[in-house]
Order: sequence, then C-alpha cells, then structure tokens
Amino acid sequence: MHVCQFSHATGDGSSLGVVDDGQVTTIDADASSLDAALVDHDWSSLRTAATGSSFPVDDVTLHAPVDRPRNLLGVGLNYAGHAEEGGYDVPEEPVFFAKSPSSITDPDGAVTKHDLVTDLHYEGEFGFVVGETARRVDAADALDHVFGFVAGNDVTARDMQLRDLNAANPWYRSKSMDTFTPLGPWVTPVGEDVDPASVAIETRLNDEVVQSSNTDDLVFDVPTVLAYITDHVTLHPGDIVLTGTPSGVGSMEAGDEVVVEIEGVGALRNEVRTP
Amino acid sequence: MHVCQFSHATGDGSSLGVVDDGQVTTIDADASSLDAALVDHDWSSLRTAATGSSFPVDDVTLHAPVDRPRNLLGVGLNYAGHAEEGGYDVPEEPVFFAKSPSSITDPDGAVTKHDLVTDLHYEGEFGFVVGETARRVDAADALDHVFGFVAGNDVTARDMQLRDLNAANPWYRSKSMDTFTPLGPWVTPVGEDVDPASVAIETRLNDEVVQSSNTDDLVFDVPTVLAYITDHVTLHPGDIVLTGTPSGVGSMEAGDEVVVEIEGVGALRNEVRTP
Repeated sequence: MHVCQFSHATGDGSSLGVVDDGQVTTIDADASSLDAALVDHDWSSLRTAATGSSFPVDDVTLHAPVDRPRNLLGVGLNYAGHAEEGGYDVPEEPVFFAKSPSSITDPDGAVTKHDLVTDLHYEGEFGFVVGETARRVDAADALDHVFGFVAGNDVTARDMQLRDLNAANPWYRSKSMDTFTPLGPWVTPVGEDVDPASVAIETRLNDEVVQSSNTDDLVFDVPTVLAYITDHVTLHPGDIVLTGTPSGVGSMEAGDEVVVEIEGVGALRNEVRTP
Repeated sequence: MHVCQFSHATGDGSSLGVVDDGQVTTIDADASSLDAALVDHDWSSLRTAATGSSFPVDDVTLHAPVDRPRNLLGVGLNYAGHAEEGGYDVPEEPVFFAKSPSSITDPDGAVTKHDLVTDLHYEGEFGFVVGETARRVDAADALDHVFGFVAGNDVTARDMQLRDLNAANPWYRSKSMDTFTPLGPWVTPVGEDVDPASVAIETRLNDEVVQSSNTDDLVFDVPTVLAYITDHVTLHPGDIVLTGTPSGVGSMEAGDEVVVEIEGVGALRNEVRTP
C-alpha cells in the first residue's frame, strides 16, 4: 500500500490517493496535500479514509507526493563508495544540506539541463517523509516520527558544485535548480514491507545499471540521520530527507532516461530535456 | 503602511493586518498567511481589504510576517567590510545559501543559544519578500516581483560554521537551528517610503550600536541579487531573501537583547535565552 498525490482527467486538480493492487482510490480528506493531511489526520487512518473514486493506476498522472515541504534535505557522502569516487573522506558525523523545494518534480517529469549547467549528474537515493514534528529525537525513537519512504533523485550540476567548492556553499544552488528533485512515485508508509535498514537501490541510465547498492551500506542509517538532523533543525510533517547516493554517479545528456528504483517502494522515470 | 501577521487576545489565532498610524486593522481575506494572500489576491489591494477589527499596535502580538516560505535565503559576504572581517575576498558573483524555514521566529521572540553552540552571532540584515513567482528575472524588472521589505537577523552558530568550513556545507546547519531567523516586525510594501538602494541598517546589542551601515554599501544590490538567484532557483510568493550583513558581527550570550532596525521598515527586538 502506498500514498500518492495524483490527478485524473475526470478530476478537478490534484488529490491524495491510496495505491493498492494497481488501483488508486481517492482519500476523502479536507487536505489536498500530504503534508497537510499528516497534520490534520491520524496518519495510520489514511487507508480507511480512501473511500472516494477509484482508477487504475495506469490511468492517472502521479505527482510528487509532497510538493511544498518546509525542509527538503539531503545527506552528503553517506555511502563509502561515493565518498571515495569523489575524493572525500567518509565524514565522522552526518553531513546534511538543503535543496530548494522549488526543485521538486513529478516522478515521471522532465529533468531540465539548464543553460548554466555543463555536467548534469543523477544521484539515486532512498528517502523518507517525516510524519510528525521531530525535534531532538533519539535514534531509538526516530522511526516513530517517519511516515514513510520514497525514491528521490538528487540531481546535481556537478560542474557548478565543483566550482562552488572554493566558495562557501557548494551544495545548494547546484542541487536546487527547477526539476532537480524528482520524487515519488508515492510514499510507502512505515509498516508496509520496507525495512529501511535493508532496501535495494538501483539507478539505470538508458536501461544500463549505473548505481546498485543497498541501504545496509549507509554510513549513517536512517534513525541516526534523523536524530542528528533534529539535534539541529526541527523537522515537520511532510519534510523529506534523501539519505545519500551510492557510488556510480555520472553524467546525463538531453534525451537520456534515468530510472531510480527503490525496492518495495517504486521507481522514478525521468527524461532529460533542454530548457 | 505595513502588512503584518498578528494575534490579539480577543481573536482566534493569527490574522493578517495592515499597520497604519499605530493601528492594526484586520485584512478580510480567506488566506490566513501572507504567502497564501499573495497568491490569491491582487497584492496592491491588501490595504483596501483591511476592513476588519482594529487594535492599537501596542495591544497585539506581532508574528513573523511569513512563517512557511518555500525558500528562505541569505546572501553571503555582500558587504565588503563583513567579507574583510571574516578574512574572505569579496565574491565575484552573489553567493546565496538556504536557511531552514524551521528557524523563523517572531520579531520579539527569544533566540535560543542551543547546547550545541558556543559562539552565537547576530547578523542584522535588510530583507525582501517575493510577491510573485520569479524565474530568470532580469535585474531591470526584478523589483516588480518584490512585495516588500523586512528586517531579519541571520543568527549564526559561528563556531559550528567555522568547523563546517572543512566539510562541504558550512552555511546550512549553523544558520538553521530553531529561532535563528527573527523576522519582521512586518513587511513594508514596495511603493511605501523605502528605497532599497538606500536604507540605513543598524544592530544594537544591549543598546550599544554594533552594526551600522546602509544598503548603498551592498556589493550586489537587491535587483542584482534577485535576478542572480532566479537564474538558479525559482522564487515563489512569500519567499524571503536576506541580503547580507554589514561588518560588526559579534557574539551574544543568554540575557542579551539584540535589536535590528531597518530604516522605514521597523525593528526586531530579541532576547537571547538558554534552551
């Protein structure tokens, strides 16, 4: 069972839905966005609130499950292999950074290779969605604050990021341009068949496997990452954390198709386009 | 005339208001937040929509005028004197960074010196609030996308920022902790008596002037900053950009009172407290 944001030709804008057995069923909630629903509703009850119109999932347009989080964060160098390929040491504490929520795009939306960018990289990532306000949370309790799991592509203008390393803020603008965060295809709630400690993650570029790893290779696991972040920044319902990319990052050109697939969750499928 | 977010003992939560001649008058809008009002309403008409209950401004509690922007950004090293005091060169292009919207606090709210922080700095700043979606805007048209001006304090855990300089993301966590962005006391719309090219900015610590400058000393002025940011990140109604701090940054301890005053806009007044 997954929770999605979708639209359908017969509908009036975007709705929340529950995906089960190839069908999307509209959630009857006042809230039209997942982050609002997570504030207003007991989120364990979202499934029973799915009593509206039902459609085959192939007939709907899936949107990013959250399009306006307060915080959209990434974790840097959280797989040893990726730290190594970038020439970095593995950090001693989690390193987290912000991406602009303006960069969020649909699970099958186009990724733009903007004119300012010469080297556009995919970064397939396992992400989680915060379910309730989390402030100075202990790692032991961290998963109680997570609503579910999501696939993310932390698209990065690598040329810009490397130039900015000599400035003071390398990991913001190069990861925050429009369309640089495909997200989805939905959120798989905690309690479904996803163990965040052991989830396969695979990225394919034009059908060739370019990243293949598992969250059991994370330097800092999901509870550790969540606890560390909330020692600094209070996370709110609907906030999203992408937990880092494994080795195998590389360039994309216009016309390429990049797929990020998270075991038990689903796949993003995005085509790269010129502006 | 200013636009504020306020609450009053007789009211039911927070409302939008227009401040004029020492009185706050409630704006009759469906939207309860400024960013929503900027989407739903012709923002030049907010004054005429102020037809609700009226209160002396001294009798209300003023809140941060926007508490959930998509983007809360700062500009680094945008006064030559501040770059110099930090040992940096003046950047050749604007350097912008994200602060977490979780860090926003009321214009007279407490600023917390968190346990993780040993050296807590004030940074008084002139800020602007975006009025309409801005994407690849020319500097010549930039001010058309600005709703108004605001005072901000870009509170920074300097010790953490300096430690993080050896990591890859120095300007995020150290500026994003809860209460690290006092904002307000309201927004002074474009067209009122504020010329963003020449606004005095003053910071006082326990009544002693510690920062005193003017936006005519900005390395990159407001239109240049806005245009540059929107070449990278699309800004949305209610988004906030703090344009940089002048020289004179320094430490605050629990019990200190810090005031940031922006000519023609107003003043923030925040006390530093232990957690």
